[in-house]
Amino acid sequence: MRVAFLGLGKMGSALVPHLLNAGCEVTVWNRSSSAAKELASKGATMASSAAEAVSSCEVVFSLLLNDAATEAVLFDGGVLDAMPKNAVHVSVGTISVALAKRLTLEHAKRGHRYVGAPVFGRPNVAAEGKLWTVVGGAKEAVQSVRSLLESYTRGMTVVSEEPWSAHAMKLAGNFSVAAMVATLSEAMMVAESMGVSPELFVEMANSAAFRSPLYEVYGKTLTNPPKEVGASMELGEKDIRLFREAAAANGVKTPLAELMGKNFDAAIEAGMKDHDWATGYYELVRKRQVEVPVVL
Amino acid sequence: MRVAFLGLGKMGSALVPHLLNAGCEVTVWNRSSSAAKELASKGATMASSAAEAVSSCEVVFSLLLNDAATEAVLFDGGVLDAMPKNAVHVSVGTISVALAKRLTLEHAKRGHRYVGAPVFGRPNVAAEGKLWTVVGGAKEAVQSVRSLLESYTRGMTVVSEEPWSAHAMKLAGNFSVAAMVATLSEAMMVAESMGVSPELFVEMANSAAFRSPLYEVYGKTLTNPPKEVGASMELGEKDIRLFREAAAANGVKTPLAELMGKNFDAAIEAGMKDHDWATGYYELVRKRQVEVPVVL
Repeated sequence: MRVAFLGLGKMGSALVPHLLNAGCEVTVWNRSSSAAKELASKGATMASSAAEAVSSCEVVFSLLLNDAATEAVLFDGGVLDAMPKNAVHVSVGTISVALAKRLTLEHAKRGHRYVGAPVFGRPNVAAEGKLWTVVGGAKEAVQSVRSLLESYTRGMTVVSEEPWSAHAMKLAGNFSVAAMVATLSEAMMVAESMGVSPELFVEMANSAAFRSPLYEVYGKTLTNPPKEVGASMELGEKDIRLFREAAAANGVKTPLAELMGKNFDAAIEAGMKDHDWATGYYELVRKRQVEVPVVL
Repeated sequence: MRVAFLGLGKMGSALVPHLLNAGCEVTVWNRSSSAAKELASKGATMASSAAEAVSSCEVVFSLLLNDAATEAVLFDGGVLDAMPKNAVHVSVGTISVALAKRLTLEHAKRGHRYVGAPVFGRPNVAAEGKLWTVVGGAKEAVQSVRSLLESYTRGMTVVSEEPWSAHAMKLAGNFSVAAMVATLSEAMMVAESMGVSPELFVEMANSAAFRSPLYEVYGKTLTNPPKEVGASMELGEKDIRLFREAAAANGVKTPLAELMGKNFDAAIEAGMKDHDWATGYYELVRKRQVEVPVVL
């Protein structure tokens, strides 16, 4: 299958090799070209523009930083108009529900199909081909790209035939993980104030109650900040904001997310924009014990 | 070993058979006597008062509703003065850090030893002997009751030689579980507003991220309220309040717990005192979408 891949950050770069291994002809494009060169050495074709990359493809993957980058590439970059009729756009990025709805319409106008297919997992999990994919889209459109999604996926949740529903579920899932980090931060802080190591608290709570590998991983990540930032505070802030916007659009109140949003804002204001989103959140909770008044 | 067991609620009644099976002579006492009669038929001895129950025992277990009930029985009920010298008090209940500190001192004055040993798990898990026990206490005191704790325990976390540290960890653990319920409630509410079933959201988030049996169980409990209340809203309110008090005593701010505390208060005000604490919390979050202004 002829596939274009737009956006070669850590995640995108980890996904392209799986598509190559699945036998696809992959044309790659990225704003800066170093990641594309790396993938060209593995068999991908480099394109000089996003519009060129998609012009003769059956499937277009996009995995760009946020709504603004996605809009810039798809609209201003001419991708929407360059895509062949009947092509399928698979949107892997964590974008807003509103943009997913808009893209569904714009693609339909041009005879394309749009599939929302955001993923759960960090780049190392992507490299192993073990992401979890959440899918929304018309049945036959999903069916036509299923084997491609499976090339990097350990499991899939098909939410509905509405592409935006997959993006909504991804945002709600990210909110849940962020709430776990917020909870851990608060509980570990209390444990520490009692003279109990945060590590022992995490071990106890996970053995006694959660038994969750994710809880364990984040517990360790908070107390032993990784050398490389997994995702930034800025991305964490974006995800919580999009979750709140999606909820608010439906008239749903989200006080927990609001509290977390305020913490992300405070962290970014304090210059922690590029810190790891999880360790940064914990760091902020610890700092604000002495420095700033509590949010509530 | 001669053991007294004070407090035969659902949890206490589930623990006594394990102590009997472990070969203990168990004298039981409860405010009302029906549960004691049931256990007498299994080999326990009934006492007519708490003080009588403990008067010739080596180990006293207490598992009473809350601080007030624990104080009433131990102080006003004469248990502290009736306990033989060198006896060990194993406090299984979820009590405050402040009361645990006070009891440690009062017992020491009288030549007793105090072990904090609260547990994680619902009554059905207690019946299976698979609770998780969190222990604080002097080494040799803990050693002397270890086999008794093991009779109903699948694993143990020894926190420190300070009995109160175990109670603090139990409160922080309960806070974490309550925060999971609060998070689930908010995310499921948003999913529902998107036309996605709360069940599908839970399945997706647990497959994609948490992989936690506890997350799965609570997800199911929220959408399919159990016929029998596991623990009441009143108990949930108590646990979050004690966590906040323990944190505040150390000058630690807990905005997440504060938000949850306000929700528990609102639920109790709305007459939901005896509802299941988890399904009641979700019910409140759903109700307040239309009925009352948001907390934050």
